Amino acid sequence: MNLPDTHPLVDGRTTNAPLIQAFRGERPGITPIWFMRQAGRSLPEYRDLRQGVGMLESCLRPDLASEITLQPVRRHGVDAGIFFSDIVVPLRLAGVDVDIAPGVGPVLGAAVRTSQDVDRLLEKELTDEAMAPVREAVALTVDQLGTTPLIGFAGAPFTLAAYMVEGRPSRDHLAARTMMHADPESWSRLTGWAADVTGRFLRGQVLAGASATQLFDSWAGSLSLADYETHVGPSSARALSHVHGLPVSVVHFGTGTVHLLPAMRSVGADVIGVDYRTPLDEANTLLGGTTPLQGNIDPAYLGAPWPVLEAHVRDVVERGRSAPAHVVNLGHGVPPETDPTVLTRIVELVHSIS
Amino acid sequence: MNLPDTHPLVDGRTTNAPLIQAFRGERPGITPIWFMRQAGRSLPEYRDLRQGVGMLESCLRPDLASEITLQPVRRHGVDAGIFFSDIVVPLRLAGVDVDIAPGVGPVLGAAVRTSQDVDRLLEKELTDEAMAPVREAVALTVDQLGTTPLIGFAGAPFTLAAYMVEGRPSRDHLAARTMMHADPESWSRLTGWAADVTGRFLRGQVLAGASATQLFDSWAGSLSLADYETHVGPSSARALSHVHGLPVSVVHFGTGTVHLLPAMRSVGADVIGVDYRTPLDEANTLLGGTTPLQGNIDPAYLGAPWPVLEAHVRDVVERGRSAPAHVVNLGHGVPPETDPTVLTRIVELVHSIS
Repeated sequence: MNLPDTHPLVDGRTTNAPLIQAFRGERPGITPIWFMRQAGRSLPEYRDLRQGVGMLESCLRPDLASEITLQPVRRHGVDAGIFFSDIVVPLRLAGVDVDIAPGVGPVLGAAVRTSQDVDRLLEKELTDEAMAPVREAVALTVDQLGTTPLIGFAGAPFTLAAYMVEGRPSRDHLAARTMMHADPESWSRLTGWAADVTGRFLRGQVLAGASATQLFDSWAGSLSLADYETHVGPSSARALSHVHGLPVSVVHFGTGTVHLLPAMRSVGADVIGVDYRTPLDEANTLLGGTTPLQGNIDPAYLGAPWPVLEAHVRDVVERGRSAPAHVVNLGHGVPPETDPTVLTRIVELVHSIS
Repeated sequence: MNLPDTHPLVDGRTTNAPLIQAFRGERPGITPIWFMRQAGRSLPEYRDLRQGVGMLESCLRPDLASEITLQPVRRHGVDAGIFFSDIVVPLRLAGVDVDIAPGVGPVLGAAVRTSQDVDRLLEKELTDEAMAPVREAVALTVDQLGTTPLIGFAGAPFTLAAYMVEGRPSRDHLAARTMMHADPESWSRLTGWAADVTGRFLRGQVLAGASATQLFDSWAGSLSLADYETHVGPSSARALSHVHGLPVSVVHFGTGTVHLLPAMRSVGADVIGVDYRTPLDEANTLLGGTTPLQGNIDPAYLGAPWPVLEAHVRDVVERGRSAPAHVVNLGHGVPPETDPTVLTRIVELVHSIS
């Protein structure tokens, strides 16, 4: 099964959008830009819409998820929408007892710690039927976006597994990394399950109209290269196998991953997202000069006076010229307290210097 | 002023202890080992002692701080005591309104955000008088330790400043890193103040009997190399200037710092502590093969079956042979849930294979 005739990459709406060109490794007429977490708490229109609506509910109501995805595209004139969702949405859709606690993050009803816990988890799966609200939200969004591509969103299996084993957000994911060494068989079954769930979640978004995808391995930076290659990379590759054969680029991103960049590419990524710690020219060297890059304005500059921020953005664009292609982004998500007018100004600046 | 005649490095008690030899770059007869956070929550005798006693109180009561420092030395037979304290203790001693909230960490009465906040902070200082309980605790401890050296403990100015600007623990220290770029003048005054406070705290421990020191820059890994060199390194160098001229080695440690190792050495460190993410032979290469290393058993292995853990410890010792000298440690602190008998077994193993 390939893409339907009405898909924006098939009817041609997004085929030559600057973002899609850059993800293919070309240099479009302008340097494309979008912001991780552009849809969300930095926007007053988002906060209005979320009044009295829980986070997961807002992800699973197609009208809301679509409108939230579109808000930053309208406001900032960015070159892509990123599907509004959360890393744990596919877990919820597969029947896992998980919610997002305000001010805390994802909290599971019961942490997955033992082989028996994994057995119980493996009875669940993400069905096509459960994906209906996601497909609907994507279709609604793509209809409105026109020639602006939508990027599909999913969390990588390690990050999903870390949430499931810890039961809540943690600093160093020690319980998850302990399972990896203490019970590698359970770890492998757990991450394999997570790979299929998140892979299907991503595939569903693409079939419904997304023109590219991004896999977020938020916590991969807590791993050594050896552990990544042995215990994590294979499940990320399995997740991405669900979109192989579909004509969409895959961006792969994590923070604190300077030691993992080539390994994160080798699981099947086309584009590497670089966090703010590693200058793009260095990242390009680490990757052998062959991979389109995305990034990496440091969010810590967003509160600085404009001349300081402008110089930093220009430096990011300049260093990005070393890579085969470059999509400007932040080197981490938009902080909630960001003044959104600053983001709009960055978009104008990046488009003007391209 | 140099060390008093009764200091263990002057009367010779610790001068040729394996730890001190290794820190000097020599290869002693056994490979020395200690554990970051060996004093603390993993020990039942510690939990007994802390019943009804707040964290900062336990650091500031000389009898308690000394006993807690000694407990793991007696139990595990490690090659050093690490002075039981907390990164924010010198702030409290300087009159800053800070406490350690159980399950949260350091919380300030008021975050330091503006130039005026920094002005008010600069009216405070760490006096010799305020250091009395620290000196007393160190003296009590050194009397009991005999030929086992005590390592003095302090947090680096960036990590202290991050707590002060955020007002509480945070994931990416964004408020602190924003001040760095938005108001570099206030940032510089703040970290300069923190450097003198933490430097005096370290110097006081050395004069009272510590035979080595470790500076913890827990959050340095959140920085790019450029930001570290411009906005952080100078204050760490200023902190360490307080112990220059004293005949003690300085260990410098942070997590997620693979991109910062040479920069963290260049502020005046003699030994680099390596976190669990970077194999010691790679760290040694990054440092040009000239620096004694400390580390880096991954705490995630502490819950694994003994043969798996043993193989990992042997691998760490083997990779450590590439460096000029090696002190075995964890690549992060002892997790609270660690079975302490496992730590004792690691000490026996490391001493047996040396």
